[in-house]
Amino acid sequence: MKQLTVDELQLLADQLRQFIIESASHNPGHLGANLGVVELTVALHYVFNTPDDKIVWDVGHQAYAHKILTGRRDLFSTNRRYGGLSGFPSPVESEYDAFGAGHSSTSISAALGIATASRLKNEERQVIAVIGDGSLTGGMAFEALNHAGATKANILVILNDNNMSIDPNVGALKEYLLNITTSDTYNRLKKKVWDVLHRWPRSREIIQRIEYGIKSVLLKQGNLFEALGFRYFGPVDGHNLPYLTNVLQDLKQIQCPKLLHVRTVKGKGYKFAEKDQTRWHAPGIFNMETGEQLRTKADKPQPPSFQEVFGKTLMELASMNDRIVGVTPAMSTGCMMTFLMQRFPERFFDVGIAEQHAITFSAGLAISGMIPFCNIYSTFLQRGYDQVIHDVALQKLPVVLCIDRAGLVGEDGATHHGAYDMAYLRLVPNMIVAAPMTEADLRHLMYTAQNEKHGPFAIRYPKGHGLNTGQDTPFQTVPIGKGRIIREGTDIGIISTGTAGLNVIKACRQLEKSGIQAAHYDLLFLKPIDEELLHSICNKHRRIIIVEDGAVTGGLGSAVLEFADRHRYHANIALLGIPDRFISHGHISELQRECGYDADGITAKAKSMMQRHPSPCVE
Amino acid sequence: MKQLTVDELQLLADQLRQFIIESASHNPGHLGANLGVVELTVALHYVFNTPDDKIVWDVGHQAYAHKILTGRRDLFSTNRRYGGLSGFPSPVESEYDAFGAGHSSTSISAALGIATASRLKNEERQVIAVIGDGSLTGGMAFEALNHAGATKANILVILNDNNMSIDPNVGALKEYLLNITTSDTYNRLKKKVWDVLHRWPRSREIIQRIEYGIKSVLLKQGNLFEALGFRYFGPVDGHNLPYLTNVLQDLKQIQCPKLLHVRTVKGKGYKFAEKDQTRWHAPGIFNMETGEQLRTKADKPQPPSFQEVFGKTLMELASMNDRIVGVTPAMSTGCMMTFLMQRFPERFFDVGIAEQHAITFSAGLAISGMIPFCNIYSTFLQRGYDQVIHDVALQKLPVVLCIDRAGLVGEDGATHHGAYDMAYLRLVPNMIVAAPMTEADLRHLMYTAQNEKHGPFAIRYPKGHGLNTGQDTPFQTVPIGKGRIIREGTDIGIISTGTAGLNVIKACRQLEKSGIQAAHYDLLFLKPIDEELLHSICNKHRRIIIVEDGAVTGGLGSAVLEFADRHRYHANIALLGIPDRFISHGHISELQRECGYDADGITAKAKSMMQRHPSPCVE
Repeated sequence: MKQLTVDELQLLADQLRQFIIESASHNPGHLGANLGVVELTVALHYVFNTPDDKIVWDVGHQAYAHKILTGRRDLFSTNRRYGGLSGFPSPVESEYDAFGAGHSSTSISAALGIATASRLKNEERQVIAVIGDGSLTGGMAFEALNHAGATKANILVILNDNNMSIDPNVGALKEYLLNITTSDTYNRLKKKVWDVLHRWPRSREIIQRIEYGIKSVLLKQGNLFEALGFRYFGPVDGHNLPYLTNVLQDLKQIQCPKLLHVRTVKGKGYKFAEKDQTRWHAPGIFNMETGEQLRTKADKPQPPSFQEVFGKTLMELASMNDRIVGVTPAMSTGCMMTFLMQRFPERFFDVGIAEQHAITFSAGLAISGMIPFCNIYSTFLQRGYDQVIHDVALQKLPVVLCIDRAGLVGEDGATHHGAYDMAYLRLVPNMIVAAPMTEADLRHLMYTAQNEKHGPFAIRYPKGHGLNTGQDTPFQTVPIGKGRIIREGTDIGIISTGTAGLNVIKACRQLEKSGIQAAHYDLLFLKPIDEELLHSICNKHRRIIIVEDGAVTGGLGSAVLEFADRHRYHANIALLGIPDRFISHGHISELQRECGYDADGITAKAKSMMQRHPSPCVE
Repeated sequence: MKQLTVDELQLLADQLRQFIIESASHNPGHLGANLGVVELTVALHYVFNTPDDKIVWDVGHQAYAHKILTGRRDLFSTNRRYGGLSGFPSPVESEYDAFGAGHSSTSISAALGIATASRLKNEERQVIAVIGDGSLTGGMAFEALNHAGATKANILVILNDNNMSIDPNVGALKEYLLNITTSDTYNRLKKKVWDVLHRWPRSREIIQRIEYGIKSVLLKQGNLFEALGFRYFGPVDGHNLPYLTNVLQDLKQIQCPKLLHVRTVKGKGYKFAEKDQTRWHAPGIFNMETGEQLRTKADKPQPPSFQEVFGKTLMELASMNDRIVGVTPAMSTGCMMTFLMQRFPERFFDVGIAEQHAITFSAGLAISGMIPFCNIYSTFLQRGYDQVIHDVALQKLPVVLCIDRAGLVGEDGATHHGAYDMAYLRLVPNMIVAAPMTEADLRHLMYTAQNEKHGPFAIRYPKGHGLNTGQDTPFQTVPIGKGRIIREGTDIGIISTGTAGLNVIKACRQLEKSGIQAAHYDLLFLKPIDEELLHSICNKHRRIIIVEDGAVTGGLGSAVLEFADRHRYHANIALLGIPDRFISHGHISELQRECGYDADGITAKAKSMMQRHPSPCVE
């Protein structure tokens, strides 16, 4: 590749882009972001000496071209599939993947660590962090800039500015970057400076100083990145390959923290994706020619998902209660808070990729009498754990935490599974933690949660569908901490919470066919836990299985064990859920099977328990 | 107060300052930060209409003058004492405390939430966030600025710039603020503008635009806050009360997100505190006249604390292994990484108040072959939970997490107790979690942890002292996941981890006097847990007590219950530790007693268990 001419490089980029579109059309992935960085990826690998020079991809779902260029073309058809390539960078997969990613805003920190280690070991290398303008709103990116800017670290931050998160990007920074980008006068002068720069490369320093002067005078606002100790370059067109390679060649010579502002178009080169960037962020399979987004067989027209029920219910509640507001950290489309946004824009807040702020902002709203429904994906809520504990729970504020993508999420893999929320929320005092089994439950829980006397109220639910029933039922108040009996049975008791209960329902049917009468209890609330129901279960059953779509360690099973211990019940209790290791990617059904809590796993566990002698005594 | 003249205001400020110094001299507290904001506090309450206007204090340990001015003068002698006033703002305590605090960088988020709620409710009020330059390095402050700057929220952010965290502040932002402050030309022009401003208040808008132009041209770097959509004012002298009140009066008229940069001196008005700001951050009791920091009786000359052992051991290990580096988010003095800083400055990294970045920066170092010892207080590690899970544990990187201030911490109260780390780390795959009972254990664990084959290795230890033995013993490798028998006994088995074991040792002696022979097992590792030892304990004892200096829910006790369930042991197991509620402030011994896991509590529990029939069977 290093031998290619600039024209040949463009050809390579075009081929890469076609390959990515073609692949994604039948094997779903993050299309838009990947199309936006094809030229940038080619330029980086052309100019820098990877894997010795290190590229850290922020979030990482834009690394397809990188993966294809670094020896994974033939495997690319397995992207995001069970046992196949990860949809994110993974150092285990390739030495070219300098650092794993999945959550946003980590790249500058990691790159600074790598650059610092190189300096300490006297190894010369360039470390590059490629970060989107969306990711830059995440606070830890700023923490890293603040640290890096005060060092001599040889890192290059490439700001991949496409003005988008999944939804259009928000916040002051966006305006700021836009102002830089659209300042015509500035751009013209800028271009002149770059032209000069290339003619007399040795006077670069002087010219950059001139450029700097121009910038100070002309830019409506001073330069944010320079204020943080970075040398700022740009903005440059991220699809102009010759220009990009030239600029990168130049930057290679400058040994300091520096930032190159690259303007790209999400979905670049595929007209449908350029036109509707949110819809083409991760489109599923599609017809390449017509741009029609197709449904798989399993994916045929379906009733509303949990997301749709969430979105519509929130809007409905907000129309009945004007103290209700919605807060999302950059996931309005994903969690379908778009319904609220359209109906009550003044009560909808997309705060950017900023989970910490989202939660404390919600706490501020709550302490002032509002009832914020703050929707955060389970895996991202880990970013706001401290804020949940101290800003919300300690102050008993009525923030409704709507935890989307709870449980195993499938193809996004280890960094996106919502495995831990039950375990880490259960130990927070004052929290209510609930998990609906059906869409109707979600509605009723949301309706119930708006009563602020309850304080902090978490509702966790998965991506996709439950039983597809009751999504329009009239609202009911759910008694806090009360579970329910789904099915009576005498041989074995099975306890679940949330949609793990759907697996249990199937398992009970399978068990019945084998002559085993299983009882099924749905706790609905992990906290407070239904002690009355648990007493009756523990008195009735000497064999109990607990099933949860979350980490077994410290989760629902653990809560029941603590209860049983407190009350000296000595049943045989088996815990099923996500085991104590990171679960990779694949279809949810494949992963649940691997973890042993799909219907078959539950059935098998019940059968094996039936064959063993139960606990001989109950005290 | 509103009736006072400016001279009288200054008198009030002087009295407040004396009162705070006098109080702190015999009832320890956060002296330095409080002395720095006396004038600012007086000015805020003078100009604004509290409690209707809202003041949100960031971190909150600088709110003494505020508390004294708002009806808590007489109670102030109970500050930070058991049952007394909290050392931090607390809405439960007073309607003047607009939002609770304790951890840094939350104030802008909370203030924006409050201001947004006010707008939605059509209530006119000014919402003020007072944030230090140290706290501003925390990422969530930036997340909030980015959000607020794009709104029309009527919030005033007061940047209390004293150039300090507990230690001198670090990072690019510090340099930036210093540059603003020391630019003479700018200041002179600035002053002129302000003079004009006061003469013709109606042309304020125009003059501010002029000022703005001057700023753009003159400031070496453009203005960071303006870039983020804030109107920037300052810097002003935070100890010039007349000037400060004038400026605040003016700002009151401007309805938009605005930032006033106030320059203050930590420890202002008390010469000893001004001179050594780190030492006087929270000095303990002292002689007001001589500035001599005194020791209480309980506090007489003592052997090295865990902190000192940590600091010296790290330096010792670093001198033997040049791949070892130290990372701290602004706690170098508190955790005593200062030893490393002095000896190997190039391998010491204070990254500012930035826990998220601290962890991922450490991960970057680790993936490049270094062995970072990243020291974070337990309660602050909640800020970096996601980074621990995905950037460290998922990639199995050898980051040594040294978790200081684990367990109940005493006078700092609910926001500072290290209650949850064991529970929330236990559920993270690949993690090793250890807790030394003695200083020697800490040494050996740190020595052991540097072997990177172990991957992520957390060591949690409390503030203060253990058994005060063995802090200089030669290094030993500790077998991973192995506990030990501290004392044999047949009547009851007591399991502990960490310094909770010291309470158990005392309890065992007390029990012996009552004729009860208790065995004591120290697990040393919470994860992996010593299954061999647990088998032997469960086989031997039908009564077991588990004691931990952490939340009972999901913690060590829960881990043992999971083990016992897996292996069908049915002993009577009692769990002692921090119960499922927030624990307030007071002396550690008072709080442990309240929670029932001090020596007396353990003894009482053992005795009551001895009186009950034990579990009738072991399967």
